[in-house]
This record gives sequence, structure tokens and C-alpha cells, in this order.
Amino acid sequence: MIQYTSTPYRFLLGSKSPRRSELLQTAGISFERIQIDVDESFPAELNSELVPKYLAEKKADAIPITAPGDLLITADTVVLLGNQIFNKPANRDEALHMLLTLSGQTHTVITGVCLKSSAHKHVFSESTDVTFYEISEAQAMFYIEHFHPYDKAGSYGIQDWIGVTSIRDIQGCYFNVMGLPVSRLLRELSAF
Amino acid sequence: MIQYTSTPYRFLLGSKSPRRSELLQTAGISFERIQIDVDESFPAELNSELVPKYLAEKKADAIPITAPGDLLITADTVVLLGNQIFNKPANRDEALHMLLTLSGQTHTVITGVCLKSSAHKHVFSESTDVTFYEISEAQAMFYIEHFHPYDKAGSYGIQDWIGVTSIRDIQGCYFNVMGLPVSRLLRELSAF
Repeated sequence: MIQYTSTPYRFLLGSKSPRRSELLQTAGISFERIQIDVDESFPAELNSELVPKYLAEKKADAIPITAPGDLLITADTVVLLGNQIFNKPANRDEALHMLLTLSGQTHTVITGVCLKSSAHKHVFSESTDVTFYEISEAQAMFYIEHFHPYDKAGSYGIQDWIGVTSIRDIQGCYFNVMGLPVSRLLRELSAF
Repeated sequence: MIQYTSTPYRFLLGSKSPRRSELLQTAGISFERIQIDVDESFPAELNSELVPKYLAEKKADAIPITAPGDLLITADTVVLLGNQIFNKPANRDEALHMLLTLSGQTHTVITGVCLKSSAHKHVFSESTDVTFYEISEAQAMFYIEHFHPYDKAGSYGIQDWIGVTSIRDIQGCYFNVMGLPVSRLLRELSAF
């Protein structure tokens, strides 16, 4: 990996997502992955747009950071259509329902990010609007069968078959849709 | 490669760009690559926005298509800032100048695509607006040294270090910025 600058931090990425790891690697940030298991529930009265920040912070709160140079990064990505939150689909029927609901529509992808050191905690989120062309039931079934999008909010990966063939337009940060708004994250880190 | 549908065509991709090949593969389209060498000049009086269509068609015109099932795809991508066209940089100084000019600005990436069979020819283009955060001279130099963006219009690849770390926002098709508006191409193919 090619690194542009040295950093005073040892980064800890508290995420299982292989896309988040790839993005940090592409950005030239070295890090260690740590496992965080939290219940991803949130208060029912919480405004949908605040859910990703709430869950990113909840993940960060599960890990105590005591070493002065350690910096924990946690994140949570949700897909929103109106006020409806689409998280990871539990099964094939749910995945199919999500894709057919997103078909021909513009939805919002919000990633919440929490940065946490022994001294500070900072939470922010980034939104990107994504517009799909029409997706037929046959296309959605094909995608689910071959790509198993069960680890993806909204049942799709923008970087794979359905993204390349069916996304018409995005407004905002592409990498945010993949799960981490890296360019924004770097600027928040500079100010941390 | 996983293919969604069979096609009546044998696709010929007239492009050296590894990104275009990757995108077609991700879309599940099998194709053969053919080499096209044309002089990439264009009439000085041509409106800048029409240059990518003009060059895509010029590339297609260089190859006769006679077999009824063959379908040639050619493309040309340019970066536009105002009326200024940024093509592939000839050397390090030009690459540096381009990146520092794009820094902190919104530019437009236009890809022109030509579809050509023995019976028809169809040309279209797709535009995406891309906004960079500020890029320092040190960052631009680092990128040029390590990533050699000499085969890329505007001296950058959206999918690599500088894209992930410095692009703030896009408005339109991400894959168009990589060099091929695949989802639009599939819809133009259906109507071809």
C-alpha cells in the first residue's frame, strides 16, 4: 500500500465490511480491523436520518479506547426511501421486495461515521442520492441468486452487476454509497 | 463471468482502456477487444461538448463492420472545465497543471459512445459533473509519481487514490467518469 502521509494515529476499523477495508486501503490508510458486536436496534422515535449516526456511535461506545494514539473508526450505512429504512435483508423475499421498491426511484444512502480516541469522540454523516432505472423482477431475482446481497443495506452493491447495469445517476459521494465517505472522513480527521 | 441474458450480437470493444473492459465484464457482457488507431484530432470550431461523440464516431468509422451479428462499441472520454478540454496529459508538467486547475472546482466528464453494426450506427454521450476538494501541489505530485495517470483524461482515475481521497461529490453516472456509461449503454443497445 502506498501512503501519502504518516499519521500520529493507530487506526482501528470496527467494521466487518470488506468494502470499507478496501476503501481505506485505496486511500492509503493502514489500520487494524477489530470485531464489534452490538445489537443494531435504535429508538423507534428517532428520526430516520439520524439512525446511521446513532448506530455508528453505538458501535464505538462498545469498545473502550485507552491508548493515547489509538483512533477507532466505526460506521453504519442505511438506505432510505421516504421515511422507510432499508437495512440488510433477512432473506430472499425481503431482498426482492427491497430491490423492486427501489426500482425506478431515487433513494438516499446515509453513512454515519464515529471517530473515537481516548480523549475525543466525533460523529458525522454523509448523504448520497441514488436513482435506479427500472429493475424487472427477473433482474432482481438474477442478482439475488448470483450475488447474495444479504450483507448490504438496501440489498445492493453499487459496485457490482446491479449497480453497473441499473443505476442511472448519483448525487453526492460515490464511496459513501459503498459504505464510507472517505474524502469527507479525511477532512473530519484533520479537524479531529 | 455471470451473464444475465444471451445477446444476438458479437460485441467488439474498440478501446485500449482497461477500465472500459472491466466495466463491460462487471455488466456481464462478453466481448472481444479490437485495436483501433486513429488520429484523435477534431475540428477546432467544434463545440467542446460534442468532441467525445465526434471522436467516438471517428474511431468507429476506422473499422468496417460487415458480419451481420457484429456490434462495435467505441468511446471517447474528455474532461471539460468551462470550454477548456483536458485530454490525456502528455507529461508530468501537464498532468500537474491539470490537477491543480481541477482542484477545488467542479468539472464535467463527457463520454461519447458509438454503436455500429453492419446496418446501423448510433452515437450518444453522457455527462457527469465532478467536484474536487482542494488538491495541494504535494498531493498532486505524489499522485502523478505513484499512479502515472498518463492514459487518463484530466490526469486522474476516479477509482484510485486521488479519487477516493479528494473527490467531494459527483452528479450523474459514476461509471461514466471511469470511461463508460454502462447503464445508459445497455438502454441504448435495447433500442438499437
